[in-house]
Amino acid sequence: MPTKVSPLAPKLYPELPEITGVKLASVEAGIKYTGRKDLCLIVFDELAEVAGVLTRSHCPSAAVDWCRKQLSKGKAKCVVINSGNANAFTGMKGRESVGLTAEAAGNVVGCDPRRVLIASTGVIGEPLDVSEFPVRLEMANAVLNQDGWHEAAQAIMTTDTYPKLATRSFNIDGQDYIINGIAKGSGMIAPDMATMLAFVITDFPVSHKILQKLLNRHVKNTFNSITVDSDTSTSDTLLVFSTGGRNKISKLDTKRAKPFESALSQVLHELAMLIVRDGEGASKHVCIEVTGAASKSSARKIAKSVANSPLVKTAIAGEDANWGRIVMAVGKAGEPADRDRLCIKFGGVVCAEDGMRAASYDEAEMSAIMRRQEIDISIDVGIGKASAKVWTCDLTREYIAINADYRS
Amino acid sequence: MPTKVSPLAPKLYPELPEITGVKLASVEAGIKYTGRKDLCLIVFDELAEVAGVLTRSHCPSAAVDWCRKQLSKGKAKCVVINSGNANAFTGMKGRESVGLTAEAAGNVVGCDPRRVLIASTGVIGEPLDVSEFPVRLEMANAVLNQDGWHEAAQAIMTTDTYPKLATRSFNIDGQDYIINGIAKGSGMIAPDMATMLAFVITDFPVSHKILQKLLNRHVKNTFNSITVDSDTSTSDTLLVFSTGGRNKISKLDTKRAKPFESALSQVLHELAMLIVRDGEGASKHVCIEVTGAASKSSARKIAKSVANSPLVKTAIAGEDANWGRIVMAVGKAGEPADRDRLCIKFGGVVCAEDGMRAASYDEAEMSAIMRRQEIDISIDVGIGKASAKVWTCDLTREYIAINADYRS
Repeated sequence: MPTKVSPLAPKLYPELPEITGVKLASVEAGIKYTGRKDLCLIVFDELAEVAGVLTRSHCPSAAVDWCRKQLSKGKAKCVVINSGNANAFTGMKGRESVGLTAEAAGNVVGCDPRRVLIASTGVIGEPLDVSEFPVRLEMANAVLNQDGWHEAAQAIMTTDTYPKLATRSFNIDGQDYIINGIAKGSGMIAPDMATMLAFVITDFPVSHKILQKLLNRHVKNTFNSITVDSDTSTSDTLLVFSTGGRNKISKLDTKRAKPFESALSQVLHELAMLIVRDGEGASKHVCIEVTGAASKSSARKIAKSVANSPLVKTAIAGEDANWGRIVMAVGKAGEPADRDRLCIKFGGVVCAEDGMRAASYDEAEMSAIMRRQEIDISIDVGIGKASAKVWTCDLTREYIAINADYRS
Repeated sequence: MPTKVSPLAPKLYPELPEITGVKLASVEAGIKYTGRKDLCLIVFDELAEVAGVLTRSHCPSAAVDWCRKQLSKGKAKCVVINSGNANAFTGMKGRESVGLTAEAAGNVVGCDPRRVLIASTGVIGEPLDVSEFPVRLEMANAVLNQDGWHEAAQAIMTTDTYPKLATRSFNIDGQDYIINGIAKGSGMIAPDMATMLAFVITDFPVSHKILQKLLNRHVKNTFNSITVDSDTSTSDTLLVFSTGGRNKISKLDTKRAKPFESALSQVLHELAMLIVRDGEGASKHVCIEVTGAASKSSARKIAKSVANSPLVKTAIAGEDANWGRIVMAVGKAGEPADRDRLCIKFGGVVCAEDGMRAASYDEAEMSAIMRRQEIDISIDVGIGKASAKVWTCDLTREYIAINADYRS
């Protein structure tokens, strides 16, 4: 699929440290790709605490249905992830495939199938043949190791042009902890190929209930504040695990929770940014900040309206500081905004204010800003005090090339 | 600017007949373009009844603000339309320009400036210099004629690749009537260049109140059911005029109203289709019909979600019957849909049903359908009985080329 790595790819990939009690392995299952690993198994020595956020699509994949059901218990022994086939819109066969996968993994690692979580990414609507899974999972189980993070991040890729990894360490009461994350996704989210999947694992002891609350708090400003093409996958899955242990935190906002929460939010943010920067065809990383809005939700809606506007995104691709299109996108959001107080900045430089082009507007200065790889757009809508940030990428010919030619 | 005419352009343009009491003229005002007419004046011998629908953008243009105010009276003596500059987001200067234009036109045709309606289309945010308008409108007034429809349709074009005209005649109680319409627009709606403007004029006597009601009824399934890129202009303006005369209809659903209503809805539909077929970069005309929805509004939301999905649109550009992306777009609409009863057809042929690919699915048959210029997609969501249709076009490399390179 993609022939070249995104120009926004990181220059260096972090080395993810081992986490006691967590082992990974990736193998070739030949699901769609040949000559690459496409099946990943993550196993916890002890039952892990788990929290998750799943796609809000009304047509979710069979794996998402499965995870939603099992997550209610908040415990997991292992995770099976395959790339190349999303097992979405595959009807009864899809549900059977998920059941068989859970059973096979349960046999291999020795657990109740309900303690197996599953994520699939790839083509929609093609039946997923799992007949080889018992053998392949057995093979994976035989080579489990604590060092397989980079390989796992590669095994779950589809149209991604680079693996996505993030890590933080933190110290609480003299004890060191780690939080590692891997993710994949290259559209928000091209459903055939670029479902968003992310798996974050820490050895900090935290109950699944608290984990879920912290996740809900931070998913909003990270994974739920990015967009590549406004399309939502049938399969989006974000799971966060704690290997548990004694002395779990069971309250939010305690002194012990704070450093963990900070590390968690940083890992989520970093993974989310890596996804936007690998947006299909992306050549620019764009941050849209809306201030002066009537409410937080209003600010988010306006920011998303700008971030999802094909005209704004094509203008950015063309390195054009086309603030007229920003005005249009603010206007179409349907949220309170005062046209005559609107202030728009690119790269911190005012280009429009008080309902018209700024007197100081300088085409050459703006052009220089638009040639950057990172573009900050800030919009004050002149109504209230609420603000929000959304991250996106530009819309290029390459996006069309990738998506017009894929399935057939 | 567009260098070639849309492949979906009509083979023949209708000849619009003269309408007694309506005269038009188009002149060169040199607003942005050189060597083409860009200022159109339409004058009614007697005050016309007028109804209108204007953009719902919260950042409307100065001309839209003006029309909204004057429409409350329901009377118009003339219309001034310019292309090349939208006079949007131009602050106090924009309001002054509109006031000066109304005054100049009022002087020229001899009417209260408040009986002058104004529409502008073109670049956002550039001040519109109207200092030449008094002279140019005088020139236009001197060459007014009943035959200027085609020329007017050309004068209001921006990125449009062809002029848009429609006409119907109908007979009521032995009397012949005409309804003519012209429109422009090439995105739904690229605000810089392709604001949607439409002007429909009939000699059938109808009060502005009834005209407004009929317009509201039919705009929903015509202009409000098309989308090119999901972007809403700051300047969208649809005005319908009746030259009035005695014996106006003043009730809906009377025997006399029916033939007029039918002709009106046909003209609105035809103009709306002409706009979609001239969508920026369009190579396919797509009709999306949703059936089996919980409500009419739910059906429309699902149809628009599909029609606006970049992934669905790029798949169509790639002649790929990618029903997986249709499932995704149905799912993300957030409306009731039963994944396991979903039935999707391309060109009338079932490709997915009962939550999975149809057993009868034939790639060659689907490929042949996708190579057509007109693509019908029908989606039964398996919930209720409501339905809706939305029309759109595909998303091509050409769209990016047009929009990434425009302003600078």
